[in-house]
Amino acid sequence: MLSDVEGLYSGPPSDPQSKIIHTYVNEKHGKLISFGEKSRVGRGGMQAKVFAAANAASKGVPVVIASGFATDSIIKVLKGEKIGTLFHNEANLWECSKEATAREMAVAARDCSRRLQKLSSEERKKILLDIADALEANEDAIRSENEADVEAAQGAGYEKSLIARMTLKPGKITNLARSIRAIADMEDPISHTLKRTEVAKDLVFEKAYCPLGVLLIIFESRPDALVQIATLAIRSGNGLLLKGGKEAMRSNAILHKVITGVIPDAVGKKLIGLVTSKDEIADLLALDDVIDLVIPRGSKNLVSQIKATTKIPVLGHADGICHVYIDKSADMDMAKRIVLDAKVDYPAACNAMETLLIHKDLSKSEGLDDLLVELEKEGVVIYGGPIAHDKLKLPKVDSFRHEYSSMACTLEFVDDVHSAIDHINRYGSAHTDCIITTDEKAAESFLQQVDSAAVFHNASTRFCDGTRFGLGAEVGISTGRIHARGPVGVDGLLTTRCILRGSGQVVNGDKGVVYTHRDLPLQ
Amino acid sequence: MLSDVEGLYSGPPSDPQSKIIHTYVNEKHGKLISFGEKSRVGRGGMQAKVFAAANAASKGVPVVIASGFATDSIIKVLKGEKIGTLFHNEANLWECSKEATAREMAVAARDCSRRLQKLSSEERKKILLDIADALEANEDAIRSENEADVEAAQGAGYEKSLIARMTLKPGKITNLARSIRAIADMEDPISHTLKRTEVAKDLVFEKAYCPLGVLLIIFESRPDALVQIATLAIRSGNGLLLKGGKEAMRSNAILHKVITGVIPDAVGKKLIGLVTSKDEIADLLALDDVIDLVIPRGSKNLVSQIKATTKIPVLGHADGICHVYIDKSADMDMAKRIVLDAKVDYPAACNAMETLLIHKDLSKSEGLDDLLVELEKEGVVIYGGPIAHDKLKLPKVDSFRHEYSSMACTLEFVDDVHSAIDHINRYGSAHTDCIITTDEKAAESFLQQVDSAAVFHNASTRFCDGTRFGLGAEVGISTGRIHARGPVGVDGLLTTRCILRGSGQVVNGDKGVVYTHRDLPLQ
Repeated sequence: MLSDVEGLYSGPPSDPQSKIIHTYVNEKHGKLISFGEKSRVGRGGMQAKVFAAANAASKGVPVVIASGFATDSIIKVLKGEKIGTLFHNEANLWECSKEATAREMAVAARDCSRRLQKLSSEERKKILLDIADALEANEDAIRSENEADVEAAQGAGYEKSLIARMTLKPGKITNLARSIRAIADMEDPISHTLKRTEVAKDLVFEKAYCPLGVLLIIFESRPDALVQIATLAIRSGNGLLLKGGKEAMRSNAILHKVITGVIPDAVGKKLIGLVTSKDEIADLLALDDVIDLVIPRGSKNLVSQIKATTKIPVLGHADGICHVYIDKSADMDMAKRIVLDAKVDYPAACNAMETLLIHKDLSKSEGLDDLLVELEKEGVVIYGGPIAHDKLKLPKVDSFRHEYSSMACTLEFVDDVHSAIDHINRYGSAHTDCIITTDEKAAESFLQQVDSAAVFHNASTRFCDGTRFGLGAEVGISTGRIHARGPVGVDGLLTTRCILRGSGQVVNGDKGVVYTHRDLPLQ
Repeated sequence: MLSDVEGLYSGPPSDPQSKIIHTYVNEKHGKLISFGEKSRVGRGGMQAKVFAAANAASKGVPVVIASGFATDSIIKVLKGEKIGTLFHNEANLWECSKEATAREMAVAARDCSRRLQKLSSEERKKILLDIADALEANEDAIRSENEADVEAAQGAGYEKSLIARMTLKPGKITNLARSIRAIADMEDPISHTLKRTEVAKDLVFEKAYCPLGVLLIIFESRPDALVQIATLAIRSGNGLLLKGGKEAMRSNAILHKVITGVIPDAVGKKLIGLVTSKDEIADLLALDDVIDLVIPRGSKNLVSQIKATTKIPVLGHADGICHVYIDKSADMDMAKRIVLDAKVDYPAACNAMETLLIHKDLSKSEGLDDLLVELEKEGVVIYGGPIAHDKLKLPKVDSFRHEYSSMACTLEFVDDVHSAIDHINRYGSAHTDCIITTDEKAAESFLQQVDSAAVFHNASTRFCDGTRFGLGAEVGISTGRIHARGPVGVDGLLTTRCILRGSGQVVNGDKGVVYTHRDLPLQ
């Protein structure tokens, strides 16, 4: 049955609190949905459709009410896609509360976040300190749940690297508590004024920070990510939905319980929702009207898939094809130290070097020979671009856009700093790129013209990290150009609002006031 | 023919410069596409497919090569949708360069923007001053092209309001030139440092502004929007694609010509592309890999459609359901002045009042009677919510989420400031909302808890505007929470980058340096 709305809603479709009911269950929805005079859904049309559909279903004829505006609704229904509202005489036997749960959690998280924002800065700080204390007090219980996850993962034959990432090593809880206390001590970012302008006499404009709203974090393995992100969300006044990997289910559950256990009733424990139901990621990603930002923490594939399938803004990066360029004038000892660190310190990290660009004049230098020997000694496999393949007889790369994430890298020669910049802007992933040089002019060209989230001079790419940059912690590293870019701490979880304080001013065709537009001190 | 890629590309599909070829023309593409050893598309598979497809087509059998991963490729092909690569023996007779054009323009705009960024601040300033001069020097020609558009629109029977918006009135060019000179005088935002931190000894972190990249502006009627936006784009170092309404075609063409006429060769005129070909908006919106931000300037419908169909971030707002709340303690003379201005100054503006909320204790006050009389005198039609309908016998509203954009508004009584806040957060569009009160505590609650881009105390909602706020000009008003929010000037066209200047530091498992994390002055 085709209608002018997407299906049956729990309230007026225009009300953001209303949700579409994907599966109608008479016992449950018959009472809840009001078809009163006040409801837009109650103007006869939908009531009559629901009556007819429920009637047909009860006689064994399943019915879907869907939108007649979309041209492919019927095809989608025939394919079995979840669109519109399904009426079926066995629906009461199904487990069909999926989307409602996640949506309800998001709406509740927003309500709680508004109450969190009303608290004083000291009260928010106290919540964070209480979380740090509670984690330490419950360390044994947390570790025993984590061990159970690790054992189960070992039994299930998960990869070693995944098991390593999900293990909370001794001292980890203490470290987490310390980092929470550091974040608690940060200046409160909420309502922090960024700009003040006198618009006209007694009319003052302010631009101030405020929370984004509700964040959805989708993370794999690492249970410590849950703690870090929950802390940053509370510090920035945001509500949070957490969707962790099932491999760390028990660890996530106890961490969530310990953290929400100290959230005061004035805020509400639903501030942080742990999605443990069978909600699929796709269902969560469809909630673009109640979730403001998705932060995926996990593999490149996870991030790419999320970006491709949601209308919610995604903060993160898929690729980390980081370059180090050794300029003609580089100090080759420094170059060796930085290149080795950038590749070897943690080869699977997103900020590890994947491509080494070298000024062509260095192709027969002792410094380069020495560097190559060192890399090989560490076990790094080197592939060559077309020129390096010819000159150094290296195995040839398939593509310059390759992220090894392992003890391997690409090497290529370039003509000068400008070719290096072009190469990076063309083949890089705009994550972190570095120049090694003693030539200040070349360094400045590189820093200004390489179009990446982070550009370094004479320092290892591995420094690209929120904690190392001094942001307290990070929710991730963004290679997007909109909103936050680079390692993202509390700032990236905030947006701004315009506040205008007047004394009765009107615009009146711009003759109402005399505009002064004078910058004021921030107070 | 189903393949593992979307169709035939002009180069390796992984290269961002490669584009899918929607219509294969042997005369054109046969030579351009390399199936050499170096190309990933050249590994036999695609070459063989293209050979077979071109062969079949030449015998009169049209072929589409499309992706076999998507489950609905065949249905889409049968529906005639533009997916994959089509081979047809008459393709050489078709006009089929659509997408290529827009994509090429976007790629060229990015190249030019990189050269624009390399200029000195003074050189960028000179371009803006030259544009101001050129507009004034060409005023007669611009006005005569504009008059031709206006005449044609009148002849075609366009709406009066649209014709009013597209008309460049006497003095408009002078005003535009003045505003360009004001923007030229602004402090250069590019490379402006927002934060400096000493990470470790001789290792300095900087967060600095940089351009977003390439902007796509889709605007209706107003040719002056073209000038304003081009100016802000140059000031912020961005490349620009402009897609104007066909009703102002001649005005847009001459303005574009005058502006790009003064862009120096060192930058390139392709910095600002005017899309005049038959490119459809949908084709432009598909270019999410080469366009960084879309700014729609036009009707609510235009904005909603764009938001629903593109993966490119959209800056703007669809609805402007702005509220004025008159608190119990309000000065009713001030309330009258502000409410009248908020509704009557420009009723079709997005920052005009749509809903008037009134404290219930005022329901029988003389002040309210007086206000209602004044509103009626001005010709404002007032609709009531359920309570106001009962108390004042007003015609009843269908929904609180209604934007009249005309001389009409909704009126409802609320219990107190907290009910007003809840009402606005529930039914508003998070654009601009105002409280009128002499009670400072109520004002602060309202300013802190109303979750809108702009919140006002004792001032007309009509002040929500980039020029009035002192931003120089605006590209639009954003109700999004990600990136820019509220009226958006140059700041909203910038992103940030992390710059790290070192002297050979390495991470080495975080034992490489001693972190100091000391804030440094901005210089």
